[in-house]
Amino acid sequence: MSEDTHMSDDTDLSDSTDSATFMTGAQALVHSLVDSGVDVCFANPGTSEMHFVAALDTNPKMRCVLGLFEGVVTGAADGYARMRGVPAATLLHLGPGLGNGLANLHNAKKAGSPMVNIVGEHATYHRQYDAPLSSDIVGVATPMSHWVRMCDTADDVAAMGAEAVENSMVAPGQISTLILPADTAWNTTPKMAVAGNRPTEPVVPDADAIDGAARALASGQPCTLYLGGRLSESRVRTAGRIAAATGAQIIGSTWAPIQEMGAGRTPIRRLAYFGEQAAEQLDGTEHMIVIGATPPVTFFAYPDKPNWLTPDGAEIYEICDKSGDIDGALDALCDAVGASGHEPAQWELARPELPSGDLTPLAIGQAVAHLMPDDSIVVNESGTAGAGYQMGMRGAPAHSFLALTGGSIGYGIPASVGAAVACPDRKVLSMQADGAGMYTLQGLWTQVREGLDITTVIFANRKYAILQYEFDRVGAHNPGPKAMSMLDLGNPDLDWVLMAKGMGMPAIRATTADEFNVAMAASLAEPGPSLIEALI
Amino acid sequence: MSEDTHMSDDTDLSDSTDSATFMTGAQALVHSLVDSGVDVCFANPGTSEMHFVAALDTNPKMRCVLGLFEGVVTGAADGYARMRGVPAATLLHLGPGLGNGLANLHNAKKAGSPMVNIVGEHATYHRQYDAPLSSDIVGVATPMSHWVRMCDTADDVAAMGAEAVENSMVAPGQISTLILPADTAWNTTPKMAVAGNRPTEPVVPDADAIDGAARALASGQPCTLYLGGRLSESRVRTAGRIAAATGAQIIGSTWAPIQEMGAGRTPIRRLAYFGEQAAEQLDGTEHMIVIGATPPVTFFAYPDKPNWLTPDGAEIYEICDKSGDIDGALDALCDAVGASGHEPAQWELARPELPSGDLTPLAIGQAVAHLMPDDSIVVNESGTAGAGYQMGMRGAPAHSFLALTGGSIGYGIPASVGAAVACPDRKVLSMQADGAGMYTLQGLWTQVREGLDITTVIFANRKYAILQYEFDRVGAHNPGPKAMSMLDLGNPDLDWVLMAKGMGMPAIRATTADEFNVAMAASLAEPGPSLIEALI
Repeated sequence: MSEDTHMSDDTDLSDSTDSATFMTGAQALVHSLVDSGVDVCFANPGTSEMHFVAALDTNPKMRCVLGLFEGVVTGAADGYARMRGVPAATLLHLGPGLGNGLANLHNAKKAGSPMVNIVGEHATYHRQYDAPLSSDIVGVATPMSHWVRMCDTADDVAAMGAEAVENSMVAPGQISTLILPADTAWNTTPKMAVAGNRPTEPVVPDADAIDGAARALASGQPCTLYLGGRLSESRVRTAGRIAAATGAQIIGSTWAPIQEMGAGRTPIRRLAYFGEQAAEQLDGTEHMIVIGATPPVTFFAYPDKPNWLTPDGAEIYEICDKSGDIDGALDALCDAVGASGHEPAQWELARPELPSGDLTPLAIGQAVAHLMPDDSIVVNESGTAGAGYQMGMRGAPAHSFLALTGGSIGYGIPASVGAAVACPDRKVLSMQADGAGMYTLQGLWTQVREGLDITTVIFANRKYAILQYEFDRVGAHNPGPKAMSMLDLGNPDLDWVLMAKGMGMPAIRATTADEFNVAMAASLAEPGPSLIEALI
Repeated sequence: MSEDTHMSDDTDLSDSTDSATFMTGAQALVHSLVDSGVDVCFANPGTSEMHFVAALDTNPKMRCVLGLFEGVVTGAADGYARMRGVPAATLLHLGPGLGNGLANLHNAKKAGSPMVNIVGEHATYHRQYDAPLSSDIVGVATPMSHWVRMCDTADDVAAMGAEAVENSMVAPGQISTLILPADTAWNTTPKMAVAGNRPTEPVVPDADAIDGAARALASGQPCTLYLGGRLSESRVRTAGRIAAATGAQIIGSTWAPIQEMGAGRTPIRRLAYFGEQAAEQLDGTEHMIVIGATPPVTFFAYPDKPNWLTPDGAEIYEICDKSGDIDGALDALCDAVGASGHEPAQWELARPELPSGDLTPLAIGQAVAHLMPDDSIVVNESGTAGAGYQMGMRGAPAHSFLALTGGSIGYGIPASVGAAVACPDRKVLSMQADGAGMYTLQGLWTQVREGLDITTVIFANRKYAILQYEFDRVGAHNPGPKAMSMLDLGNPDLDWVLMAKGMGMPAIRATTADEFNVAMAASLAEPGPSLIEALI
């Protein structure tokens, strides 16, 4: 079928004399997705999805990437969306398969990543029976989706697929879940569809709010501009002009879906994870201007500690949340304070020397920053090692930095898959804590199968170090032996070199900075995936 | 605190002069669970669960077992419940952690396994903020739980814990999910509680239904007794008496949570997975007596194939479903047909010879049956290798056999953990397909940490073989290269020996029957966990 037969929103080919224009519902869906701009599908299919799998070969434009666990699939779609700004599809097997994907759907939802989940279901006439795999799929989907629909007939499928894509693109990006009963996939239909451009309402930043914030910035009193959403290069540069003109400090949210960092970019601090440190960053602020976010709170609550982070008495200016016109608001504010001609600060390229001696997170950051190619993508799930290695990365070349937006660990290996599929010409550095990595280690296999250019660094401290901190911070204190055993990954030690090799990936262990330097240089010299287990 | 201070349903210690009787909500919950008979907790905690973790050390009777992924935790609790008939607790981290556990909760729900999930949540006063880990936990829990509650204050916690246990024990076994906001865990309370024995309604089997079924059995016409639920030794023996007296065939459901098999037990066929084979088993049946189940349907629907398996025109006698008094119904039926004095058929001990030559599923079954100790527990997630190896197991000694009740793959490694914790004196044989094993391979680490006596056999065919069958059976036919790549686990081949060793487990590969014999004998000779990758 040619491109031009389905350019309208909902084309009925039933009058056509050519019976070949009748497709299965699954074929119609694949075409609908491709024609709507969704041409990558991360998949972990089962029997109820076999017609969709069969349909993949009917459209050469759809790329399909297999994951051996559904958390790999949804995390990959998140990483892809963060880099490309358009959705990938996922293919998941009924309620339990979707369940396995929920944790990374949660992260994607918090990131504002567009995504289109296709979830197989029993045939419509089979749902009445309590077959073993029967479950309430709509119920499973709803908590982590913005939009959920179930097809009733094959005629629905293409149009609902297009609607799923449209809804995924609602700013800043949404999770659409389309449930596809098997008979709606295998029955034939003349109905094709393609997603329209969903009209984006021009969000005019509220002039009064901008004026109020501008007056605060001009007051000479301590101001913080708190910036949520994607920390893109142009967005942060505008914020940097405002800072240069007014002396305000700019703080990005801890969990930016993507931040453009490194040489040439505008420096911006992210809010610290621990509330005490975050409170220090914000201490003294008298005017808190919030754009693309809601005012900051701690990640968790703790007994007898504040969870609301804006200093008492500070005036808050909420300009827009993450679904608003963040760039429009920043531009308006920049104009209002007369900052358009100001040059923002800029990170300079100052690659650190190669480290030697003990292998610490700081040394790892220095080695990476010394060796990494320009324009790498850093997927960060480094846990408690993060502060140290990011300090070591000062002076690094330009790179994109992806964070754990929803706090659900096990996103790093999968998101690296998605980022590498999205950007095949860029090196991906997957900076991975060992405990978190274990949730979705199956993603290493997909990296090998697809030949993705990813270097994974495992920060192997062999414990849930964050929980050892948090145990004390929540006021539990002095863990007993049973509690300690819940926070400890030793006994037995995990051997990431063997696990990676078991999935076909070259891997090596580094125990000193010098060993790490050599391993990292070798990994970067060779395209394709490899893993370094860094014993820290 | 002594046992006798909390023997009533809800004891208030606030009048006590001893302030030590005030516990944190988390401590009260641990005591409530232990005193209600729940003394094992499979856990994958996070910050919001740290007070529960701290409380573990306040009660020496609570054993806590760490899993590195939540699907391991819920699958282990399922295996434990199937062997013990009482619930284990799970400890899970907010909505995403619960999400990761849903697939094995689904299997447990279908198995009728009692389980008590404790899910941490943000402090009650923190939920108003859209913190990164905020989600609708009740929404995530509901599809796979029979009972869901959220604590409001520390005073609720012990009573709700007891209520969770009570509800988990509703026949045949239910999933209870208790959500524990962090402040309800860290605040103190005088309130203790212990689960009562939930009054079981004496389900009197309907006399008319029993009479009708008895008349059918006495008619001399072909009868099938279709038996759901747990296929316990006594239950199947009663069914066997009925068969001996009347000539009826007994068919168990494909997905029995547990079947007592092997020498000395009453033989019973389970319904075949593929509808065509199941239809053959039931062909000619004129009276279908259904106890502990609903009438059988196919696992999936297929185009132009029947999904309802009872032969057309057969009369159906639905005596009770899986929540009914299955034993009472069987006893009444046995009496009504005068079968009480009949001896049921019995499997004889006839261990097969050790195989040699090619390593096939049949050969694996023969080697296992030759070598396995009496009273082993076989956890079966062998996929397409199952028919062959189970044929080889004919003549095996007595053993318990656990099946994949809900069709959600990734239950075998975790359920083996739970079965081994439940029955430390019995050898567990974990018969595991490679594709399914990858969903929850992290469970191997827990097997090592706990020193569990489990031999895992990986059936390594390096493909999703079931999907290669099903692709054709759903009428898709002739998969193209993209479709084939979704059904294939090669490129790269998984190396289970390396992956297991990476988690500290002794492992070996077998490529011939003779190699397998040696490996299996060695594994069985040595207590503790080990793995054999069988290339079939």
